[in-house]
Amino acid sequence: MNCWYVAAWDHELIDGKLLSRTILEKPVVIYRGDSGAVVALDNRCCHRGARLSNGRREGDDIRCMYHGLKFNAAGKCIQIPGQDNIPPKLGVRSYPVVERQHLIWIWMGDPAQADPSKILEFNYLSDPKWRGKPDYMHYKANYLLIVDNLSDFAHLAFVHTKTLGGSEEYAYKSKPTAIERMDDGFRVERWHLNSDKPPFHKKVDRAEGKVDRRNIARMYVPGIFFMETLFAPAGQGADKGNLQNAKQYRNCQFFTPETKSSTHFFWDYLHDYDLNDPTIALSLNKSMIEGFLEDKFIIEGQQEVLDADPNFKMNAIVADAPLAHFRRTLGKLIDAERAALQPAAA
Amino acid sequence: MNCWYVAAWDHELIDGKLLSRTILEKPVVIYRGDSGAVVALDNRCCHRGARLSNGRREGDDIRCMYHGLKFNAAGKCIQIPGQDNIPPKLGVRSYPVVERQHLIWIWMGDPAQADPSKILEFNYLSDPKWRGKPDYMHYKANYLLIVDNLSDFAHLAFVHTKTLGGSEEYAYKSKPTAIERMDDGFRVERWHLNSDKPPFHKKVDRAEGKVDRRNIARMYVPGIFFMETLFAPAGQGADKGNLQNAKQYRNCQFFTPETKSSTHFFWDYLHDYDLNDPTIALSLNKSMIEGFLEDKFIIEGQQEVLDADPNFKMNAIVADAPLAHFRRTLGKLIDAERAALQPAAA
Amino acid sequence: MNCWYVAAWDHELIDGKLLSRTILEKPVVIYRGDSGAVVALDNRCCHRGARLSNGRREGDDIRCMYHGLKFNAAGKCIQIPGQDNIPPKLGVRSYPVVERQHLIWIWMGDPAQADPSKILEFNYLSDPKWRGKPDYMHYKANYLLIVDNLSDFAHLAFVHTKTLGGSEEYAYKSKPTAIERMDDGFRVERWHLNSDKPPFHKKVDRAEGKVDRRNIARMYVPGIFFMETLFAPAGQGADKGNLQNAKQYRNCQFFTPETKSSTHFFWDYLHDYDLNDPTIALSLNKSMIEGFLEDKFIIEGQQEVLDADPNFKMNAIVADAPLAHFRRTLGKLIDAERAALQPAAA
Repeated sequence: MNCWYVAAWDHELIDGKLLSRTILEKPVVIYRGDSGAVVALDNRCCHRGARLSNGRREGDDIRCMYHGLKFNAAGKCIQIPGQDNIPPKLGVRSYPVVERQHLIWIWMGDPAQADPSKILEFNYLSDPKWRGKPDYMHYKANYLLIVDNLSDFAHLAFVHTKTLGGSEEYAYKSKPTAIERMDDGFRVERWHLNSDKPPFHKKVDRAEGKVDRRNIARMYVPGIFFMETLFAPAGQGADKGNLQNAKQYRNCQFFTPETKSSTHFFWDYLHDYDLNDPTIALSLNKSMIEGFLEDKFIIEGQQEVLDADPNFKMNAIVADAPLAHFRRTLGKLIDAERAALQPAAA
Repeated sequence: MNCWYVAAWDHELIDGKLLSRTILEKPVVIYRGDSGAVVALDNRCCHRGARLSNGRREGDDIRCMYHGLKFNAAGKCIQIPGQDNIPPKLGVRSYPVVERQHLIWIWMGDPAQADPSKILEFNYLSDPKWRGKPDYMHYKANYLLIVDNLSDFAHLAFVHTKTLGGSEEYAYKSKPTAIERMDDGFRVERWHLNSDKPPFHKKVDRAEGKVDRRNIARMYVPGIFFMETLFAPAGQGADKGNLQNAKQYRNCQFFTPETKSSTHFFWDYLHDYDLNDPTIALSLNKSMIEGFLEDKFIIEGQQEVLDADPNFKMNAIVADAPLAHFRRTLGKLIDAERAALQPAAA
Repeated sequence: MNCWYVAAWDHELIDGKLLSRTILEKPVVIYRGDSGAVVALDNRCCHRGARLSNGRREGDDIRCMYHGLKFNAAGKCIQIPGQDNIPPKLGVRSYPVVERQHLIWIWMGDPAQADPSKILEFNYLSDPKWRGKPDYMHYKANYLLIVDNLSDFAHLAFVHTKTLGGSEEYAYKSKPTAIERMDDGFRVERWHLNSDKPPFHKKVDRAEGKVDRRNIARMYVPGIFFMETLFAPAGQGADKGNLQNAKQYRNCQFFTPETKSSTHFFWDYLHDYDLNDPTIALSLNKSMIEGFLEDKFIIEGQQEVLDADPNFKMNAIVADAPLAHFRRTLGKLIDAERAALQPAAA
């Protein structure tokens, strides 16, 4: 709970849109007021429960269009048509929001702990030296199943052979050179030398020749995946530091639980070359969607299988080490949050 | 339970139709026999549970088309093909029904208490001085949410601004002149002087000029809404009794719970002028549907919101006084019905 | 559980198809390996629960296409990409399967008791003197509701008047001449003398004249229905043994529970005359589908009615004798199976 989650891309709030989105099981309405500030409120009028997202924005305020109650950006009821006296406590819950690098972050837990300095910076998303195309996808699966998926490069070979992976060889030949456990996640680095270009890269870089490929993936709690990918001409010693003519990508992925069994997925895949050619970002976006749909098919199936038999126990394999660490890290944070609540509850 | 509910319009039973309709959670089959009598039976063969509405009407009787068992209008099994001896108690439950002013009323509770004199008369529905078009709509919402909606004129201004209401001004300027609490419901009267014609009325009365508008609404348990609406030329003193050139409407609405979260809605909107012009009733019918769909959108959303969080408590505003009284009245009747059952249960 | 069930027709496994099918609540993947053997495994990778039916067949083995784990026909994990050491017990459950007369039989219970000699032979299905067209239908209903349906010829008259039955007279005039209770089911014989040809037969035998019709139906546990039907020219004494110019049918039906409320239905309707005319099998297949859809409509409705009120008790009529015997027989077998499990559990 006490974490910043991505609630939306900034472009989802254009033209005064009242965005209705469920986050951590809570229906929320999100909008940008006339002042430019982004507002997030419970999407439920405190009078009779009508959805505020069916209402009307007025400046930074919002009016329920059932009986006309009006709420300000802090959620306080400031008008009841036909009634002069407004109970001072009447209102709906508001949530802290912060806008950074085109992302709208929301804090669903205790507002007193909502410290914006804890938000991870992803400067690539607003850096003119990088170009991408922000996008969104919805998953009918618990977000941890998606995190698991990203924690394991082995699936690249089998799920994404023809899209993101390139060959099954990747699963057998390349092994992580370093798994670094961090307090808030992990870092995995993996080199695959002298390999064919994987399909998504080949589509935007048609030149002949093998490549040396490096993936550095970081996973942060609660569900942020960040991967640096580098392709250099094979054999020039990229793994020794020679990055001449290398082409690089930055994969920024943000997972926000919608419910226990569904997830919002915000992502952008950026490149650092030929920035004046708009077709590259479009092609990469299309390739990623192809690949993500392959994941989605597997993972949503997995969710159905797990739902069908809650007694099923997964079996770990060696490649699961990073995800096991990540789940432990997350478990510790959840325990700490619960422990902090104890005195209040006792 | 011990109430008369509207089960159908008479025109729903033409051509020997076997109408399958769930009322208060009970699947019922309703039909008009050759004698003209309307029959209502449990829609479930007592043999193996097949639906009688998939069967065949034979005179006033009905035959299950699975194994051919035949039942009379009282629900008694009167034939089993291939079997001579019929157990005297074999049969299905039948329900008391009464036909009045084109409405089929049904009694789902204790048959011994089914007193037809308790049925409210709506003579407008069969009076040649009034013209309308009976209609039906289905709601995915508990019927009390709809009753709440009707109990509060304030929503006219916001939900129906462009259809039934006319302007948001109505919410701020007009206040109920009288709320009369009755034993079986309430009565609210509201004047709006010197106002623009609301869109639904303007469509059938295009003359220029302001109007004085009076709404008298009555709500009766369990879910009957009846509203008299009057439009008189502004300023002639309609509120003092001068009804010259007034045009009047009668809004008859009947809500019958289908399940805990769905409702049958029977309605007719009648007018008292230009009775030879069939387009007026059609236009009013169309306007009402537009307005009802606005309500339906809000109320079905409200039901989803309430389902999602059973702990949500609504907050009353001043305008809720009539609905609070209505819910109390209904609560008293339910308590009385439960108390009456106690001796039998003890 | 300890019974052979039909899992598939052999033609469902052509072209290396990985058939995903739930049987007795268990998701199973079924395929024919390169060796010709049919394999049935739990359709759930033991690693992270991905569906094996989304994987890839390799010889007689199957590979999960999430992280590449490979399983042999016995379900044992025999390869993990990027990992040399495979835990010897790692694997998924495999099920005994037997192929007979184009049917794939599966044993879902204790594998030690899977005795292929207990499989009933249906030689008509592979006998060149009979011709048919194997087919499949899915029911949203518990399989016992379908068995009940088949146990009672009375429904032929009402449900199938215009397709398989022919006239309602059948229900009143014809009575079973013999109901024979067997240890594993029952046998019913029924003659209907000097009757009109029923519609399905009339379509393939257009000659004028009445027929003597005999049905001999057998029902075996857990859900196998087999019916021999004979049409002979009326009055020649077919019931005394003169079968000259008789035309015969063999109706083979196999019901396998998918879940508690859904059923797989495998069937073939074979004839013994004019075997070089392919249109007869097609016409009969089409007639049966028409009839089965009539059953399906009634039975799925019955399932909905029963689901809606678990307290409903069915009432037996005289014609229910065979199905009552069948349910008793099945009950005894289930009790015996449970008793056999007791020592192990105690």
